[in-house]
Amino acid sequence: MKLYDVDASGNCYKVRLLASLASIALEYIPVDLSAGEHKHPPLSHLNPLGQVPVLEDGSRVIWDSQAILVYLAGTQGGLAWWPAHPQGQAEIMQWLSFAANEVQHSLCTARLIRQFGYVADHAAAQARSVTVLGVLDRHLATHEWLAIGRPSIADIAVYPYVALADEGNVDVAPYRHVQRWMTRLEALPRFLPKPRLET
Amino acid sequence: MKLYDVDASGNCYKVRLLASLASIALEYIPVDLSAGEHKHPPLSHLNPLGQVPVLEDGSRVIWDSQAILVYLAGTQGGLAWWPAHPQGQAEIMQWLSFAANEVQHSLCTARLIRQFGYVADHAAAQARSVTVLGVLDRHLATHEWLAIGRPSIADIAVYPYVALADEGNVDVAPYRHVQRWMTRLEALPRFLPKPRLET
Repeated sequence: MKLYDVDASGNCYKVRLLASLASIALEYIPVDLSAGEHKHPPLSHLNPLGQVPVLEDGSRVIWDSQAILVYLAGTQGGLAWWPAHPQGQAEIMQWLSFAANEVQHSLCTARLIRQFGYVADHAAAQARSVTVLGVLDRHLATHEWLAIGRPSIADIAVYPYVALADEGNVDVAPYRHVQRWMTRLEALPRFLPKPRLET
Repeated sequence: MKLYDVDASGNCYKVRLLASLASIALEYIPVDLSAGEHKHPPLSHLNPLGQVPVLEDGSRVIWDSQAILVYLAGTQGGLAWWPAHPQGQAEIMQWLSFAANEVQHSLCTARLIRQFGYVADHAAAQARSVTVLGVLDRHLATHEWLAIGRPSIADIAVYPYVALADEGNVDVAPYRHVQRWMTRLEALPRFLPKPRLET
């Protein structure tokens, strides 16, 4: 299976993190965003949104980082990270939507503005980040993991942009339940550390 | 099962539409957003994001419209709308993320601005709507349904804000493949029409 991948992308890191934790072998195809490779074939044919990551498994193509997590965890993860019962899937799905929407438009956007020249309102993204971290902290005050009482792709979808928050000038230090959850996740066997920006 | 519901909400309409198509009995609890009921108990305790819809099934609570679709389709829908195999789930998941992120921040936001006094840039939301409708139209040029070759919760998650686009001053008429997909969906047995705003 091929993963079209950008090292600095938090959305690509979600997939690399699951692959490492679940010992799933992937062939990584680096994509040069600065050369616009994601806007041209083959990638523009593979993903209608022209984004990374994209997974290619033979003739099957999956775009969207959350969908790739479902695909890999469901086909290769042996039910450890994505259960077969719909009650557990729905519980995880809440946090996949939270990652696709709330986290993307707060912590991820703040980082895009600060590190990659994305044009948007940084103060607004910071304010949304405070809301997102508050929701997470209150939930994690009474839960060890985001869903189903154990590590799942819910945690893997949400962790990357929380771990990368400082690169968007968002301080996670005040959120002690979030901090403890990150420490638990980072202690899992085969944990893969976040990407470092080249300086 | 109780659904905390707002009639005019496209996200609540997603759930009502699945319930109708799949003949799932729900008890609807109307929520008065103008009175701020979603920001106070019991709703603020049930959903950390303080939003509708919320589903309560005995002691189990599911928030996020996409997660509720997974829950209801998975537990009550007999595999018709959410298959058991992860390949199909991942294909659908692509469009659940698209509904949670791209559709929400384009067609839904344009409608919130025009109809509900939401403060945001309408021209930007319209421009994002054009991108979203273009992605849908190109996909639907070669696919009858968004995923797995048959109607699924992918279609149910994306349809509502496309059907309500005119209330955000977005014109869907130029997108003929989208139009034909809407007509196919509206012809399904037990289809439930979109809510009408009180005038």
